[in-house]
Amino acid sequence: MQEQGQQAREEGLVAAVVESFHATPDARLRSLMEALSRHLHAFVRETRLSEEEWRAGIDFLTAAGHITDARRQEFVLLSDVLGVSMQTIQVNNEAYADATEATVLGPFFVAGAPEVELGGDIAGGAAGEPCWVQGSVRDTEGEPLPGAVLEVWECDEDGLYDVQHEGERTAARGRLRADERGEFRFWALTPVPYPIPHDGPVGRLLEATARSPMRAPHLHFLVSAPGRRTLITHIFVDGAELRCGGDAVFGVRESLVREFERRPPGTPTPDGRELGERSWTSVRFDIVLAPAGA
Amino acid sequence: MQEQGQQAREEGLVAAVVESFHATPDARLRSLMEALSRHLHAFVRETRLSEEEWRAGIDFLTAAGHITDARRQEFVLLSDVLGVSMQTIQVNNEAYADATEATVLGPFFVAGAPEVELGGDIAGGAAGEPCWVQGSVRDTEGEPLPGAVLEVWECDEDGLYDVQHEGERTAARGRLRADERGEFRFWALTPVPYPIPHDGPVGRLLEATARSPMRAPHLHFLVSAPGRRTLITHIFVDGAELRCGGDAVFGVRESLVREFERRPPGTPTPDGRELGERSWTSVRFDIVLAPAGA
Repeated sequence: MQEQGQQAREEGLVAAVVESFHATPDARLRSLMEALSRHLHAFVRETRLSEEEWRAGIDFLTAAGHITDARRQEFVLLSDVLGVSMQTIQVNNEAYADATEATVLGPFFVAGAPEVELGGDIAGGAAGEPCWVQGSVRDTEGEPLPGAVLEVWECDEDGLYDVQHEGERTAARGRLRADERGEFRFWALTPVPYPIPHDGPVGRLLEATARSPMRAPHLHFLVSAPGRRTLITHIFVDGAELRCGGDAVFGVRESLVREFERRPPGTPTPDGRELGERSWTSVRFDIVLAPAGA
Repeated sequence: MQEQGQQAREEGLVAAVVESFHATPDARLRSLMEALSRHLHAFVRETRLSEEEWRAGIDFLTAAGHITDARRQEFVLLSDVLGVSMQTIQVNNEAYADATEATVLGPFFVAGAPEVELGGDIAGGAAGEPCWVQGSVRDTEGEPLPGAVLEVWECDEDGLYDVQHEGERTAARGRLRADERGEFRFWALTPVPYPIPHDGPVGRLLEATARSPMRAPHLHFLVSAPGRRTLITHIFVDGAELRCGGDAVFGVRESLVREFERRPPGTPTPDGRELGERSWTSVRFDIVLAPAGA
């Protein structure tokens, strides 16, 4: 009964909300709010969202807000596990020639990481198996980018980033500069899988949807050079965890998977570093930066 | 260049996110999460959301979470000013015969309001011009619904609900029961316009989009009776504020606008109440409840 009236009511409300933003001085803000309103209403109308479900959504956002502080960002986690962060990255880093693909920044980047010399060790006391990382930074014409800046960061062997530990220590992160041939090399730690923080509302959502909180093992890079699009990416460890476990934040790209070659204890290191009875790994990552504005 | 590749990447990510919910035990939760993911990704892709804009969104939600507490619910306000609350109400209260239209609950309903006798005053000490409210509760066949329960609440003449004042006093809210003919009558306060709380992120959003935080003056009703769909609604005061100022939460429905007839000081009251030099108003609201499950 009155089906037409119902549809007209629903469409009329969407139109009224969109219209309410007509006087927004900033044209971009206006179009963002109009689009957000349209898509949210489409969700509510398509799903015939119940009032209890609406309330559950409000309660979810409230709980996410209350667990969020200077060290914990539940809204970023939510965006991550819905793939929204990765989609935003993709939209802002369109495929360009053979430029290296971008992936999520994640919540653990910290500006002002310690400077590390080429060949140095970013571990800074963090525990884990040593990993020799080397590669180059080039443009899409194949020309080296001397002096390109690389920020790298990762978790320790317990799957925790420095900022997740008590106290203020900085570890397993560093800032390096490519040499005059655009090449770099440093010691890091072999990446291990770890769960995103899952003791909050996002963790409960993953549990309710039978999804794993695990991230595929990876090493973060943020690479910049004058005139080039800044690249935020990871390299992922090829292996079983990647193939079977997936990645809770949809960050894995085939083009970013690398073999981390295993070196048994006693294998000579590239720079003569003495590792005693410890095994180590070795990986190569050649980076290609798109032009700025591409 | 590689436009096809770009589109395939974006669509592939949406598919992967939707697929990630495939093992959700609860079928309804699965379909909600799939739909939410599709609509959020559509928003990001359509607007080509920038990383700075994504960050502004995260910061907005974070600020909303931090201002929210037991007495302040910024996420409900956000849902309200985007019309999402009203759309949810509409979806769950489909037009049915001549049933009274629903509108938003708002953040100021409090369960367990004081019982008020028919003909009593819900003001409970709240300041404002007296308003005589009477009407009936019937079903869609026109049959009276004796004993229907009405919860009513409103702000005082300063535009504040009791819970917005310091302290724990209860005022300007009450619970009544329709008589054996399904009729009710009580004293309340003439509704006045008031702003939704606008000293937080939602207020800043309204300001940035040149929108008013004002709500059209109204009196809240929550009406229930056995076998009937519970009705959450308001009546709105016909007048200039309504026509010119609109309503920040899109709650106004033409069918809910009522004339609040003005009575000069000295006009005899329906129940002989002595109001001295005070003016008062009078309004009638005949309520029709749809069948439960309609």
